[in-house]
Amino acid sequence: MQKTVGELAQVVKGEVFGRPDTVITGVADIRGARAGEITFAANAKYEAIIEMSSASAVVVRRGYECPRDSKVYIKVDNPDVGFAEIVNEFAPEAIRMKPGVHAAAVVGRNVVVGKDAHVGAYSVIEDGARLGDRTVIYPHVYIGHFTEVGSDCLIYPNVVVRERCKLGNRVILHPGVVIGCDGFGYATIGGARKKIPQTGNVELEDDVEIGANTTIDRARFDRTIIRKGCKIDNLVQIAHNVSIGENGLISALTGIAGSCEIGKNVLIAGEVGTQGHIKIGDNVMIAGRTGVTKDVPSNVAISGFPHMLHEKYRRLHILQKRLPELFERVKHLEETFERPHGVSEDNKERG
Amino acid sequence: MQKTVGELAQVVKGEVFGRPDTVITGVADIRGARAGEITFAANAKYEAIIEMSSASAVVVRRGYECPRDSKVYIKVDNPDVGFAEIVNEFAPEAIRMKPGVHAAAVVGRNVVVGKDAHVGAYSVIEDGARLGDRTVIYPHVYIGHFTEVGSDCLIYPNVVVRERCKLGNRVILHPGVVIGCDGFGYATIGGARKKIPQTGNVELEDDVEIGANTTIDRARFDRTIIRKGCKIDNLVQIAHNVSIGENGLISALTGIAGSCEIGKNVLIAGEVGTQGHIKIGDNVMIAGRTGVTKDVPSNVAISGFPHMLHEKYRRLHILQKRLPELFERVKHLEETFERPHGVSEDNKERG
Amino acid sequence: MQKTVGELAQVVKGEVFGRPDTVITGVADIRGARAGEITFAANAKYEAIIEMSSASAVVVRRGYECPRDSKVYIKVDNPDVGFAEIVNEFAPEAIRMKPGVHAAAVVGRNVVVGKDAHVGAYSVIEDGARLGDRTVIYPHVYIGHFTEVGSDCLIYPNVVVRERCKLGNRVILHPGVVIGCDGFGYATIGGARKKIPQTGNVELEDDVEIGANTTIDRARFDRTIIRKGCKIDNLVQIAHNVSIGENGLISALTGIAGSCEIGKNVLIAGEVGTQGHIKIGDNVMIAGRTGVTKDVPSNVAISGFPHMLHEKYRRLHILQKRLPELFERVKHLEETFERPHGVSEDNKERG
Repeated sequence: MQKTVGELAQVVKGEVFGRPDTVITGVADIRGARAGEITFAANAKYEAIIEMSSASAVVVRRGYECPRDSKVYIKVDNPDVGFAEIVNEFAPEAIRMKPGVHAAAVVGRNVVVGKDAHVGAYSVIEDGARLGDRTVIYPHVYIGHFTEVGSDCLIYPNVVVRERCKLGNRVILHPGVVIGCDGFGYATIGGARKKIPQTGNVELEDDVEIGANTTIDRARFDRTIIRKGCKIDNLVQIAHNVSIGENGLISALTGIAGSCEIGKNVLIAGEVGTQGHIKIGDNVMIAGRTGVTKDVPSNVAISGFPHMLHEKYRRLHILQKRLPELFERVKHLEETFERPHGVSEDNKERG
Repeated sequence: MQKTVGELAQVVKGEVFGRPDTVITGVADIRGARAGEITFAANAKYEAIIEMSSASAVVVRRGYECPRDSKVYIKVDNPDVGFAEIVNEFAPEAIRMKPGVHAAAVVGRNVVVGKDAHVGAYSVIEDGARLGDRTVIYPHVYIGHFTEVGSDCLIYPNVVVRERCKLGNRVILHPGVVIGCDGFGYATIGGARKKIPQTGNVELEDDVEIGANTTIDRARFDRTIIRKGCKIDNLVQIAHNVSIGENGLISALTGIAGSCEIGKNVLIAGEVGTQGHIKIGDNVMIAGRTGVTKDVPSNVAISGFPHMLHEKYRRLHILQKRLPELFERVKHLEETFERPHGVSEDNKERG
Repeated sequence: MQKTVGELAQVVKGEVFGRPDTVITGVADIRGARAGEITFAANAKYEAIIEMSSASAVVVRRGYECPRDSKVYIKVDNPDVGFAEIVNEFAPEAIRMKPGVHAAAVVGRNVVVGKDAHVGAYSVIEDGARLGDRTVIYPHVYIGHFTEVGSDCLIYPNVVVRERCKLGNRVILHPGVVIGCDGFGYATIGGARKKIPQTGNVELEDDVEIGANTTIDRARFDRTIIRKGCKIDNLVQIAHNVSIGENGLISALTGIAGSCEIGKNVLIAGEVGTQGHIKIGDNVMIAGRTGVTKDVPSNVAISGFPHMLHEKYRRLHILQKRLPELFERVKHLEETFERPHGVSEDNKERG
């Protein structure tokens, strides 16, 4: 497949600097790109290495000052998004599952399958469940009793959604996701662990996307809720009764403990953990590997374990690395000090 | 659905303070409860906010001094457990799978299916496996050759139990659990990794419960064993040849490395990791995100990485946060010290 | 089953010290072994406790000086590997799936199933996929459109490999593995998260083995690649566009963030995390729970978070534990110093 820079610029509504008839045969990242390929620079870090790239064309931001070199540039509002659209132009045709229920699928009583929905081979849709229009259920999916799945959802193979959960529209569940498993709740009576029934459910609002093998526990009662537009990565654990505000972003291997309330637009990097029953405000940024141990107000960035403001953490870390020096300095003070007259020759030389 | 406080008190064998004819329409947590609902306070933290709750009734411990307010109280031995029973009263009817083997299930030769057991659609029970009475196998489950599953077990969809493993009675495996996969064992010969066969198995004793997508490796030889009553959360990794004592509790995203021996009644919080070949005593408490690097005696609480006694860790952490102050103090000593006469004006002002 | 030490020595091409007609009835680890069993000591740590073991025979390295006791010894080049071969002698017969496609499997159009390959019950092989000779696909496996699986592969139940991925020969995927799920890529536009299409794939070269429930994301474009001989443990997350060099070893619960490039023969212990876009050289060793925050040169060992050279980390950790002492020493200096004449009585006594 090949396209000219001019054609691609039309796709992304971009402005061309250089020859629009330059032929592009594929996409690549800025380091790996070869002649004939197009790449992108989303920020200053990558702009700095454009000249080292062998790419024939580069998608850049509107304000970028294009050098007069042999490359062709396409200026757009958001190079990340613009390039994504160009990637799509060169992408292999997307896999589409045909509407209809596969002959080898078990669909229970009183199930509603929406218009043009697809139910793949060996999937099981239990009694009373509902699937919205155009929703695609891949093979090997289990949808529990009375669970509702909205329209235009994409449920990949081996997903399990247990009974009585609710999924909004355009929800994407990647392979192996488990929604609505029991929360981890036990009372210890005479040493033994007695299971506390988990009778609530999980609700995923519109445009939520959940990564492969991530698990979201049903509430003890009431519901665990993931609000509109949240995106959760692979291998994340969301415990019972958690609530996550709109547009949250949670990276892989993070665990959110029971009954945490997380505000809107919160960004959580990888391998973060929280204690239970914690409130986190809106627009909070949580750095990778942070351990959140108490409530967090809105609009802050936090790091470390136990967590603290990111700036404080950075300063502290710098001082920690200087511990060997501090031990030396104290030793020096002690040695000097133990001499009869205080100020020593050594000490003078130091300055 | 609605019930009076008096009816609910009978269910939990509790003592009523206030009007027993008060009508309750649902359950809720103490902050979210509205008029007409019942909630609970399991400890002093929640007792302190009872008066701020809109709940009409509250389950409390026997010794709680009920205020004379408009709320009704039910006193019980264990509010956590008592409330769980009340939650059950209001819960939707539990899902029950009917006894019998689904027509679309593959059951191998010499398989024993217990009385009133259920095998769901598309499940595969390999040759020589045994399922106990009343055990429920949901759809999409794989039970390997010669594996034995006890009575009254609950095996959720997409569980894999490989060959020759043994599960006791009343074992619960949540969706996506993998039991008996190969341990991670390689010998490095001339740079290449040669696989060491993993020919042992996994045994789960009675009343063990394993969370969604958790993995438990089979032993290199011999067995990996999880003793009676252990409860393990989602996304936990238990490596080959590990042994975990009775009534252990292990939270999400924790990894127990190969050949660790863990005692009875051990409590492990989330995102903990251990080195291999470590012995941990009985009644140990391991705080969240602890990295266990050597043997741990019985009856201690540990934290940090490398781990130390929890108390020591706390004191150390407080000092670490005071590092900026310590650097200042040393700088001050140095500055003062380098003056000819020791005690400076600054120093006087400090006091 | 029973075998003589002499017979076992022939299997491992070892040299016998003691009576070769000693009868062995099973294998065990050095601590758990009973009379009649054979065990091994792979290093000095275990050699030191040989005399405490009840084993009748021990596999040791060539250079080991066997004591004149009642045990029999087999000397081999690599006791770990030698013992693995002996374990195999006593192991139950391996499970073998018969060649052929199960009647209850869905095989799409233009699928190539290799000679003597096995496709298990309820597996789905989508249009255009290829399976090599002797490859075993267990039940409940999903192989996406146009995906190529090499020869002699072992794909356990509930594995999902999405469309257009490539697996080499002798690849092993343990249960619940997900290959080729979407990378975690979003652009934030006006607060909302816009999905960036992930149109690349995943390639696993020959002899790669992936642990249960591990997830490997497909590239945004181009490919995520795991080179020859890499072994990855359970519950690991490999993000989009990552490249891992030959013979890498990655332990459980580790996360490798997007676009990381990892060299050859890298050893990564458990619960490690990396930032995205990081380059790690060849022969690097990364200790458990390390957080890798920037590029790492070849041939070093690193630890800590943010990571540093392992030696530096160890020294720093020792000083951190001495913080209480340092605070005391500074306090002492201050107290002494604030007295009019510098050197105090206290100070003298200290020395």
